[in-house]
Amino acid sequence: MSDTERWSELGQQLRVDSVRAAAVTKSGHPTSSMSAADLMAVLIDKYLRHDFDDPENPANDHLIFSKGHASPLLYSIYKAVGAIDDEELLTFRKFGSRLEGHPTPILPWVDVATGSLGQGLPIAVGVALAGKRLDRIPYRVWALCGDSEMAEGSMWEAFEHASYGELDNLVAIIDVNRLGQRGETMHGWDLDSYTRRAEACGCHAIAIGGHDVEAIDKAYAEALEVEGRPTVIVARTLKGKGVAAVEDKGGAHGKALDDPEAAIAELGGVRDLKVDVAKPERTEPYVFSTGARELPSYDLGEEVATRKAYGDALTAVGTADGRVVALDGEVSNSTHADIFAAAHPDRFFEMFIAEQQLVAAAVGMQVRDWKPFASSFAAFFTRAYDFIRMAAVSRATIAISGSHAGVSIGEDGPSQMALEDLAMMRAVGGSTVLYPCDANQTAKLVAAMAERQGISYLRTTRGATPVLYEAGEDFPIGGSRVVRATDEDDLTIVAAGITVHEALSASQTLAGEGISARVVDCYSVKPIDVAGLSAAAEATGAILTVEDHWPEGGLGEAVLAALATLDERPRVEVLAVAGMPGSGKPAELLAAAGIDAEHIADAARKLVRAAALR
Amino acid sequence: MSDTERWSELGQQLRVDSVRAAAVTKSGHPTSSMSAADLMAVLIDKYLRHDFDDPENPANDHLIFSKGHASPLLYSIYKAVGAIDDEELLTFRKFGSRLEGHPTPILPWVDVATGSLGQGLPIAVGVALAGKRLDRIPYRVWALCGDSEMAEGSMWEAFEHASYGELDNLVAIIDVNRLGQRGETMHGWDLDSYTRRAEACGCHAIAIGGHDVEAIDKAYAEALEVEGRPTVIVARTLKGKGVAAVEDKGGAHGKALDDPEAAIAELGGVRDLKVDVAKPERTEPYVFSTGARELPSYDLGEEVATRKAYGDALTAVGTADGRVVALDGEVSNSTHADIFAAAHPDRFFEMFIAEQQLVAAAVGMQVRDWKPFASSFAAFFTRAYDFIRMAAVSRATIAISGSHAGVSIGEDGPSQMALEDLAMMRAVGGSTVLYPCDANQTAKLVAAMAERQGISYLRTTRGATPVLYEAGEDFPIGGSRVVRATDEDDLTIVAAGITVHEALSASQTLAGEGISARVVDCYSVKPIDVAGLSAAAEATGAILTVEDHWPEGGLGEAVLAALATLDERPRVEVLAVAGMPGSGKPAELLAAAGIDAEHIADAARKLVRAAALR
Repeated sequence: MSDTERWSELGQQLRVDSVRAAAVTKSGHPTSSMSAADLMAVLIDKYLRHDFDDPENPANDHLIFSKGHASPLLYSIYKAVGAIDDEELLTFRKFGSRLEGHPTPILPWVDVATGSLGQGLPIAVGVALAGKRLDRIPYRVWALCGDSEMAEGSMWEAFEHASYGELDNLVAIIDVNRLGQRGETMHGWDLDSYTRRAEACGCHAIAIGGHDVEAIDKAYAEALEVEGRPTVIVARTLKGKGVAAVEDKGGAHGKALDDPEAAIAELGGVRDLKVDVAKPERTEPYVFSTGARELPSYDLGEEVATRKAYGDALTAVGTADGRVVALDGEVSNSTHADIFAAAHPDRFFEMFIAEQQLVAAAVGMQVRDWKPFASSFAAFFTRAYDFIRMAAVSRATIAISGSHAGVSIGEDGPSQMALEDLAMMRAVGGSTVLYPCDANQTAKLVAAMAERQGISYLRTTRGATPVLYEAGEDFPIGGSRVVRATDEDDLTIVAAGITVHEALSASQTLAGEGISARVVDCYSVKPIDVAGLSAAAEATGAILTVEDHWPEGGLGEAVLAALATLDERPRVEVLAVAGMPGSGKPAELLAAAGIDAEHIADAARKLVRAAALR
Repeated sequence: MSDTERWSELGQQLRVDSVRAAAVTKSGHPTSSMSAADLMAVLIDKYLRHDFDDPENPANDHLIFSKGHASPLLYSIYKAVGAIDDEELLTFRKFGSRLEGHPTPILPWVDVATGSLGQGLPIAVGVALAGKRLDRIPYRVWALCGDSEMAEGSMWEAFEHASYGELDNLVAIIDVNRLGQRGETMHGWDLDSYTRRAEACGCHAIAIGGHDVEAIDKAYAEALEVEGRPTVIVARTLKGKGVAAVEDKGGAHGKALDDPEAAIAELGGVRDLKVDVAKPERTEPYVFSTGARELPSYDLGEEVATRKAYGDALTAVGTADGRVVALDGEVSNSTHADIFAAAHPDRFFEMFIAEQQLVAAAVGMQVRDWKPFASSFAAFFTRAYDFIRMAAVSRATIAISGSHAGVSIGEDGPSQMALEDLAMMRAVGGSTVLYPCDANQTAKLVAAMAERQGISYLRTTRGATPVLYEAGEDFPIGGSRVVRATDEDDLTIVAAGITVHEALSASQTLAGEGISARVVDCYSVKPIDVAGLSAAAEATGAILTVEDHWPEGGLGEAVLAALATLDERPRVEVLAVAGMPGSGKPAELLAAAGIDAEHIADAARKLVRAAALR
């Protein structure tokens, strides 16, 4: 069999297996798989370098299905290369199968979960950046993209960054099958609309017929020769190619074929070609030189912004651990990632104002076991929430630092104030949410984040606040800290970050009135210190929580959830930002939001009075 | 004075006033204002048509500062056109002033809040779409954009949609001052990198010197002549133009000038030119013909997906109210916005897979008092969270419908399952969050959303569920419904959406064991029915909540917050999705998540037993 004959046969096999897989539970996306089958057949047979027996080989190429719904095609590839057997292929979408509806890294050859469109390519950019600048291994990253997902701005962020990063190790393959879920895409088969945009972004673009295996071969060969920029292959294909009942037909998206047996016959029947994918020579990643870890320390009472402590601490952590890298969204002089950038320029990535690409690049780098810390204003991570959500599905380990949280930022006003980030980040599967109130605590938490699995989030404050804790004190994730207590406290004020300082101030006022308030610094918002909070509730009864955040989903509700099933449930009063803030001085805005020392003291008085009346 | 002399003088005045405004609280972005001053001087003097005395005039042009941090320039314009006086200008960024750090619609001439970059242009696309297809009034939309924000993919979504919509009523002006917050942008002064991309997207692009008032005049004149596509003016400017201490200098972003007096002198001193902006002739918007409202009704026990009821109800609401419009993210056959599209094609907007542009267009349309309903899979609204957050700052009124919520969607797996949307949407300022469990209830809630101020969100379910309520029953926002109760209930199960059905099933099992469970349908998650839940807690004591969502920020915590300050606080057990789901049948996934009838019954038994032991 000639190469072209084998590729065509292999393409048909991948189609047949896609149809068979989708037939199992009568669900999935066979037609979206069939359009890209020839593109993938040539790739795996001739160009991909990947040791499927050793998925951890650092020199492996990466194949990322940005169009994750073409999972039947991906799993059919895994069968063709011998990674899974036919029996497992036919567990597709069944409960408990590794072959989920959209790919996830439960399978060792899947780098990241896809299925939310527009994410695979930006993540591929992150992997390719790691290859160029961190691993320094000449693996290639192949990203199969759908044409529908080209409507996502994140894809164009990816093109820009791939070009800016001179990522000639990245090949994006756009499967232009013309049809989206409910009809034709914006550009149909106008291949030029894609090549024009790709070239405008500085990419090398090649338009081909996506079922012409010779043209596909030529395009890949050309991509290998391109230097200094990524290649975008724009392939005209037919959705459902090869089966007349669905080929280039509307209404056939996301559905198993009505008559799989007939379709398989039309495609020439079941085949069992095996592909012996080329294996790369094992190469070890570059190792950055390291030194001793000396976390920064600050003097008690010193005024230091926690965002500054983040920068200091991350730099120290990076000195000790060469796998720590930092990325920032063009605000490093605000988040203080700039301190890391100055100390470790080779491990710093400027992602400009593209928060989706910022998080996607972080996810891509952790695919290769780097430890990324991504920073921006906390408010602007809302831009990347879908990427953060999907990072959890990817079982990714990334650290995120959001600065300028809450109304306490002052004059810049609500567009720059994160007031929803605690809710957003708590509602991420398996996440860790930290909110330090002083610089020494911040340093310890940053160090802990570098060792933490999953998505961890640090909320920092714009303004300088006094150091409350001695350098060297421990702040375990999942803990809390009693900052002020007596044997006869009347209530507990639970605070975090900026409000710890307001709570302390309020407790002094209250002390002068004969009300003794325990103050708990709940720096670990998730996981939360159930035992510590329960003990405080038992000791003092009433609880007042106070946070620079909307009332929903933040500290107050986290505390309520922690105490919900106690035998003696305390009365809990939640102070949070009451209405839409404007501009003003931090103190004015904390007061207007109802979360400054005065409002805390007032709420405490009422709570104690209510308790006394009972 | 010649036109060009006046424009140059006016440009200097706008600079001087920007410097003066920022000097008040020593904060703000004067240098980002100074770069665009000449561009705006020519615009307001010759091209803008806006009646500042009648901001509600439907024929007014719209001027949107996508680079919202150039607010000193915008407010200086308002002074020059006589909308505000000098005294108010000098309240910039003070507490209580309408002149916030970034523009918000507290000022009647500001359409939408900006300040989160990359949003003004996509929203401008929405306003321009309204002009073309809804209002049918030839107003123009002028969007001043920063070069830094061109790194946001949302800007390229906007270009694509502006081109696809043939929006020749839209002019984007890119102020290429080369310098971002912490250094040079990705493209510096490479104007061609912007024109090339804009042209690739099908826009008409013009590159000019941004301080050459004659060139600016010519560019605007050219833009007015372009037909069938938007114009993008790419202007090379100097940040801090006119003041040597900051002109084209790094480190001068977001800071008041050190020596404002010297700067004002260097700029030629304070001026008081008044601009008499051309007023458009008042034109009334197009009125779509309407008919009687006949909400759909469904028979008890009939199996109907709430997403289907959404489509039916929205269509009915749209028949009665010609200002209701629908937008969808290329999944209208899943969200069932397709029913509206078929009935009201002139008021339906296909936004393709670009959720940021989807929400931005909705925000833009409501600027012109249209009532947009935006739909997609609930999971994919995470992509637009920054836009939703900012819509609240804009005091926008938009309705969002998110389908396919939770693990109950089945085989598609976690990438398509919204498990964080309740948390995300509750944590939006002033939002409304609704989650119906049957088709008749959905119809009523959709009708209520059309009259609701602010951001309202409807969570719908993929699978068909039995109709529980008679057609015509009322479901006020802020209410709840007791679905099952006796005089001697042992506990209350609070559910919403899909879990109402599981809870009812569990209650039947429990009844057979002598445990009487009250079941409350908490369809209004925000505002929540504090009185109704308190009454249930008082009647039954223990409460069990159950939701198809992560445990954080959803129904359970909303219930906890509602009951936190009761005199007798019930024990509350929160059932929610316990771990990362995979693929499987809906029933298998509900069971694996620990939220099906069996798990509910089990948790209820334990809760009742615990209560009995005390």
